[in-house]
Order: sequence, then structure tokens, then C-alpha cells
Amino acid sequence: MVGAGSAVVNTYPLSSYTFGTKEPKMEKDTSVADRLARMKVNYMKEGMRTSVEAILLVQEHNHPHILLLQIGNTFCKLPGGRLKPGENEIEGLKRKLTSKLGANSTALVPDWQIGECVATWWRPNFETIMYPYCPPHITKPKECKKLYLVHLSEREYFAVPKNLKLLAVPLFELYDNVQRYGPVISTIPQQLSRFQFNMITTA
Amino acid sequence: MVGAGSAVVNTYPLSSYTFGTKEPKMEKDTSVADRLARMKVNYMKEGMRTSVEAILLVQEHNHPHILLLQIGNTFCKLPGGRLKPGENEIEGLKRKLTSKLGANSTALVPDWQIGECVATWWRPNFETIMYPYCPPHITKPKECKKLYLVHLSEREYFAVPKNLKLLAVPLFELYDNVQRYGPVISTIPQQLSRFQFNMITTA
Repeated sequence: MVGAGSAVVNTYPLSSYTFGTKEPKMEKDTSVADRLARMKVNYMKEGMRTSVEAILLVQEHNHPHILLLQIGNTFCKLPGGRLKPGENEIEGLKRKLTSKLGANSTALVPDWQIGECVATWWRPNFETIMYPYCPPHITKPKECKKLYLVHLSEREYFAVPKNLKLLAVPLFELYDNVQRYGPVISTIPQQLSRFQFNMITTA
Repeated sequence: MVGAGSAVVNTYPLSSYTFGTKEPKMEKDTSVADRLARMKVNYMKEGMRTSVEAILLVQEHNHPHILLLQIGNTFCKLPGGRLKPGENEIEGLKRKLTSKLGANSTALVPDWQIGECVATWWRPNFETIMYPYCPPHITKPKECKKLYLVHLSEREYFAVPKNLKLLAVPLFELYDNVQRYGPVISTIPQQLSRFQFNMITTA
């Protein structure tokens, strides 16, 4: 959208969604070192990793909340993951969302409406640090991660893997909280600030 | 823009722009306390203050830079300012840009192309702290500040008030530098990360 006005995003109350469980989805790596090592092996085979993550919005108490997957007691992540080589970003994100949050019965899987790209992060080296730009002099970044807004319908059923918890975290909890949520998730409030939230309160 | 792909923004080298000077534009307040007191007086008369600020992009060494106005030796701000009551945001931002950076000769004033709104910040009280959302339970915010991307042409002439300096600051200098640039300017890199920069190198 170019020019005047803000894009409007409809949000619905957390209570209008239904949450069930499904079989566990284990993390592929048991440590950060393992994860970076696997990233390196995959880079050698397939080149730069592209990952896509979803911002799923709900509302409570007239304030936007984001759905985060919690692993163990502290670590939170956005639903999403790595694209297959050559895979379309939108299709790949739908595939990942279904894998992470879709019911086993296809009829219950949400018709994911992938919306605006709100952020892009770059990993210059096989390290945990990422930047919201490709740093100067980096000609071969190792990963590009894109965050998309997903427009949820008024009613959806989510099936949460048994080893994970799905949390609705308010923007005011994420903001300026890099210690708890890391640089990518803690600046989502700033990236969403350009949107006007139309908070629909259903009966 | 909804769905696939990123919005493309053309950027031109800093060297393709010309910088002159003009009469000083003094700050209306000499202290933060004065500024907050004036804000309160204006709020009583006119209600919530709406301000608009511009992100002017140039490039150097294949990396995006933002034009900031420096007052004294440390404080930096985006060009822009307060709208008149009822004034259109786009027209108001053009007026402010011409006042801050336009030549005295109308023929030389850029044809400002105001683009995407990239962030909105809210001031809940007559205090310096702002949030990228209107905090819960705040029904009468005191200020709403919107940041717009401005698409510069390949050649422009800027007239900089003699008491100010115009700096081209790279995104990597702003990122994670809240101490120097404050919360609004230091998160511009994250807000711009969704754009794809088409860095045009002219002869």
C-alpha cells in the first residue's frame, strides 16, 4: 500500500478459537551447536537457507496478542520453518503452519490466509546473530528469514503438538523485552505499529 | 501489498544529491520540560497531537542510509513535525519537509513523494516515553506520531537550516543503538527490513 492511511487488520477474541492437541513435533536439534552444525551441512548441499514464520494475531482486553509456541519452560518461537529448495514462500509457510498447528483431519485445517511480509532477517555467518539487513561486505548470507502476517478467520481449530504450548502473548509484553524473546520477536510490536487493528468482539 | 514478494524501494547515491543552506530554524523549546509543558497547553486547546516524520533514504557503499537532522552535537531527529488540527497527514508532511529541507525558491523544492507508513508511535502521557501501540487502558493518548517512507528522485536539492546538520546514517549504525538514537529511530532498520532496496548506482 502506497500513500495515505493504514492497512486494517481484523482481530478476533482468543476465546473464539479452539485448541486441541496432536502428536509431539520434536526439535531436530538438541543444542544450539547441533543446530548451527546442521545448518552448515545443509548450506553446503543447498545454499542459503530461507525460512518463513507466521504472526498469528488474536485479541484480549482490547489489545493485540501474538500466538507463540513455547518449548520447555522458557524458549518461545513463531510457528514456521525452513523452505525446501525452490519452494514458494507462501506455499511453504502454509505447509509449515499445517505441520505445526493443523489438525490431522484435513477438513479441520485452517485455510491459511498469508498476508503482508512485515520483516526480513539475515544471518551472515553460521552463528546465532541475525540482522534486519544484509550487513555490508556479506556476499553469501547463510539464512534469510521472513515474517508474514497471517489473517485468521473468526473461528479456527488449532492442534498443538503435545510437547509444545501455544501462548497468546500481548504486544506490551513483547515490546522492549529482548532478554526474554530475542531480537526478532521482541520487535514485532514496532513492525505491526503501522497497522490499524479492528478488534472485533463476537458474541 | 498483500501476499507474495516484497515492495521495492529505489535508492540513489548520496553523491547524486545537492545540499545548500538556509536561515536557521530554531527549536521552539529549550528544554524537555518546556516541550512537555507546551504539549500540555496545546492538548488543552486542540486535543491529541498528531505528528508526521519522514524517512529519506540514500545509499553509500551498497548499504541504505537515512537522512537525520542533527541539533547541537548529539541529538538527532527525523525531518517532520506537528500537523495543524484537521490537516491531512500527507499534505502536512510535505509542508513540514519543505519547511525543514526545501529551498527558499519554490522551483527548487523537491516534489515530495510520500510513500508507505512504516510505524506509528503513541504517547500515553505528557512524558517522553512512547510505545509502538496504544497501551491498554489509555483512552486519551496525548500524541500519535507516524513515520512515512519518502521516495526521493535521482536528483534533489536540499536546503539545510544553518543551525542544523543533515547526516546520512547507515542502517547498521542505527540498529540496536537505542542509547544514541532513541527507541523510535533505532528500530527503523527493523521496520524497513520488509523492503527490497534497489540500489541504483548512477554515473
